[in-house]
Amino acid sequence: MRGGKVKPLLPSVNRLAEPLVQALLKDAASLRIRADTLQNGSLLVDAGITMPGGLEAGRRIVEICLGGLGNVSLRGADTFRNWHWHLDVHASNPVIACLGSQYAGWSLSHGKGKEAFNALASGPGRAMGSKEPLFDELGYRDQAESTCLVLEVDRPPPMEVVHKIVDQCGIQPDRLTLILTPTRSLCGTVQVVARVLEVALHKVHALGFSLEHIVDGAGSAPLCPPAKDFVTAMGRTNDAILFGGQVHLFVSGDEQAASDLAKQLPSSASHDYGKPFAQVFKDYQYDFFRIDPMLFSPAWVRVTALDSGRTFEAGRLDEELLDLSFGGQYD
Amino acid sequence: MRGGKVKPLLPSVNRLAEPLVQALLKDAASLRIRADTLQNGSLLVDAGITMPGGLEAGRRIVEICLGGLGNVSLRGADTFRNWHWHLDVHASNPVIACLGSQYAGWSLSHGKGKEAFNALASGPGRAMGSKEPLFDELGYRDQAESTCLVLEVDRPPPMEVVHKIVDQCGIQPDRLTLILTPTRSLCGTVQVVARVLEVALHKVHALGFSLEHIVDGAGSAPLCPPAKDFVTAMGRTNDAILFGGQVHLFVSGDEQAASDLAKQLPSSASHDYGKPFAQVFKDYQYDFFRIDPMLFSPAWVRVTALDSGRTFEAGRLDEELLDLSFGGQYD
Amino acid sequence: MRGGKVKPLLPSVNRLAEPLVQALLKDAASLRIRADTLQNGSLLVDAGITMPGGLEAGRRIVEICLGGLGNVSLRGADTFRNWHWHLDVHASNPVIACLGSQYAGWSLSHGKGKEAFNALASGPGRAMGSKEPLFDELGYRDQAESTCLVLEVDRPPPMEVVHKIVDQCGIQPDRLTLILTPTRSLCGTVQVVARVLEVALHKVHALGFSLEHIVDGAGSAPLCPPAKDFVTAMGRTNDAILFGGQVHLFVSGDEQAASDLAKQLPSSASHDYGKPFAQVFKDYQYDFFRIDPMLFSPAWVRVTALDSGRTFEAGRLDEELLDLSFGGQYD
Repeated sequence: MRGGKVKPLLPSVNRLAEPLVQALLKDAASLRIRADTLQNGSLLVDAGITMPGGLEAGRRIVEICLGGLGNVSLRGADTFRNWHWHLDVHASNPVIACLGSQYAGWSLSHGKGKEAFNALASGPGRAMGSKEPLFDELGYRDQAESTCLVLEVDRPPPMEVVHKIVDQCGIQPDRLTLILTPTRSLCGTVQVVARVLEVALHKVHALGFSLEHIVDGAGSAPLCPPAKDFVTAMGRTNDAILFGGQVHLFVSGDEQAASDLAKQLPSSASHDYGKPFAQVFKDYQYDFFRIDPMLFSPAWVRVTALDSGRTFEAGRLDEELLDLSFGGQYD
Repeated sequence: MRGGKVKPLLPSVNRLAEPLVQALLKDAASLRIRADTLQNGSLLVDAGITMPGGLEAGRRIVEICLGGLGNVSLRGADTFRNWHWHLDVHASNPVIACLGSQYAGWSLSHGKGKEAFNALASGPGRAMGSKEPLFDELGYRDQAESTCLVLEVDRPPPMEVVHKIVDQCGIQPDRLTLILTPTRSLCGTVQVVARVLEVALHKVHALGFSLEHIVDGAGSAPLCPPAKDFVTAMGRTNDAILFGGQVHLFVSGDEQAASDLAKQLPSSASHDYGKPFAQVFKDYQYDFFRIDPMLFSPAWVRVTALDSGRTFEAGRLDEELLDLSFGGQYD
Repeated sequence: MRGGKVKPLLPSVNRLAEPLVQALLKDAASLRIRADTLQNGSLLVDAGITMPGGLEAGRRIVEICLGGLGNVSLRGADTFRNWHWHLDVHASNPVIACLGSQYAGWSLSHGKGKEAFNALASGPGRAMGSKEPLFDELGYRDQAESTCLVLEVDRPPPMEVVHKIVDQCGIQPDRLTLILTPTRSLCGTVQVVARVLEVALHKVHALGFSLEHIVDGAGSAPLCPPAKDFVTAMGRTNDAILFGGQVHLFVSGDEQAASDLAKQLPSSASHDYGKPFAQVFKDYQYDFFRIDPMLFSPAWVRVTALDSGRTFEAGRLDEELLDLSFGGQYD
């Protein structure tokens, strides 16, 4: 009687995202973004490098990044005195939408030293071309004739990187769209803050909780103001989730496992919690890998165990740290 | 000069819902629901029996249930400490959308004793096939080539019930879609909580206030966690509205009537108000008909009398009872 | 590296609004509005004169008025005790959407004395036919084969006014749609309250802050109850913004200019601030031009200077004055 016995067919994040990509391109002038065709026919969308982009362009890019499975809306709220705008995110299949598509898990690099290009690509193209072991665990792969990736970078990728994506995805070069959203841009800001649900699911996975037990979820986080430099911008977008993010998960399986998950899931369960992210980063001499991976999670979580109907919650919003992050500079 | 003198043409809830039904079927894989064709060609949609379904599937089923006339959105809010997600509902024609379609008023039964099938169907099919006297009062009937009903049940209806629906609606059997949303499922939860505006309008009608004077309205209620058994689930979904629901109605006619309506409308105006619904039900030995029908209404209402521009309010949110209901079990 | 160096192509507000106008006409029965064809073939949409219209019709008219560039949603909130419903507004290109389309800047008059017809038209038709100098400053003009204007009036315009619009827009008469939303109607209420972002941008312009520096913005305001007479209705819709409106702007350029803008922008920075708008109007003997133009602005503003990443805020919500306005009469 309880839903979930039958494993549903999995949707194609690329085929679902494709009409959203086409609509984004069609509305490029309104959204103040620009698409350029590369020499191999692939499309490069500037959503905040030389073009201004904006909140709405960012919102639509997030829906693409969620593989056409997600709903993202901008909402006013008086949760925090100083930061009125929030993003609400939910998805028809949150595990596939967030981990199978939105998670920035495809590492793309080219060159060395100061000229090196490094990006972590997100979006539906991952399910076609990325070699992340995560896809084996998800039991998910996608095939489609066109694809799209989102890169949180402030300059175009070298052609070698574009060729590599085309090859690994196994598509015609002119069926690839790459959307560039610098961390400091409005599109980039929306794009990262709207990862509030994905960040929760990623930590769920890192904690060893079975993703098959994640039935549903929804998340919200305050929109941070874009910052003047990359480190501060990265800090604020993370802090929006760490100090202001709220996620409610609906899980099947053992009630004790749901209760344990709730306790471990909030950002405050990490030993690195307690100061703005940019400060944490600086204090570790800008070595990302020294930061506790368990820090990356929402401030406040609720977990409902569907089999018992009980809800567990842990964490709290932290307006003081949020204000310190959104209002300050750490450079 | 005041709007409302001319009686507008009435929309077809079935024709408006039809593209939403088709979109639901098309996105079945994403939404984690499944459509099966019955022997007579009718479609049966499992939205939480063996399939998980989810919040977004539920949201879309509500928009179908509102006859294509309503907007339903999932929204984060900090109104209550423990329950972040709310549903907002409004409709272009709330009386037709809520009472002519969404209200679960078509009683369908078959068999006797423990094997009996009993369901109260909601959705646009009611306006074609149901014999409820309410339609005479609404002055509304619909005709269309296809139709849809939503049944809050946890098993498929017997074919006799399907045949009866087809007959009474006067359609080809293969143009009927039945959507099943068990009370305990995520789809069922969303589906019932999103009745906050409908419940208000139904009580407006029961109080004898003229539906012709209802010009507009909007409602919101907190999403409850699904429960482990039917009675608790029914209790929570009702309590979401009784203790957490807010409705604003805009009415024409006499100001005193609007003021009286506001006073009588909230759940707290009922003598059965004061404990979680599942407890009320238990205390009446599970005899639904002993419960005061005036209990079924939102916690807090505002009524604006359009002719005078004055607004009347009554009731209040009850976080203590909400927590008791959403956090507890009554079985 | 910072977005904004390249000036984006400008969208056509008329071509973007056209499918929204067609959808509005198609859904006229649901939305309880009515379209009549005038003798010259132009369409006149009654959205609150003899027809009731409603909140959803109003919401969709606002999206037309924003030239197809805006997102408007109705949202429940507990910011104010007595007024639960709010409107959230953002746009993909807020300066073009709000000032190039939504602003009620095209003055249309005919006749003299008590029989005179006077209206300030808003909507995408302004960018085709209006002679406002504002368009030179915006560097924006539009061309399209069909167009639409919204008039906040309670009677149809004389044919002379319709002919004038057709002539100045340079279109075929049967390609013009005029939408009439009386101030006292539900559509009119939504339509004016949803100007919260536009009102902010108009004051930004009046303060001499360069519109080229407005990169993005979003606004919210509580929905007021419609009033029984024009002056009270005008008062309440303005007060929704003056006492309850919140706007966040994202601006490029000098940080000091952003800080100064924040200080000057809220309604409370005006010497006429301090009583409901209808009272201000009455105290100036109903002479609109004696009212400080700086009064027309949101209650609370945040301005983020994108180049420095700092955010400045000024103003505050004023629940006491909001209650006095929304709950009272000034006639």
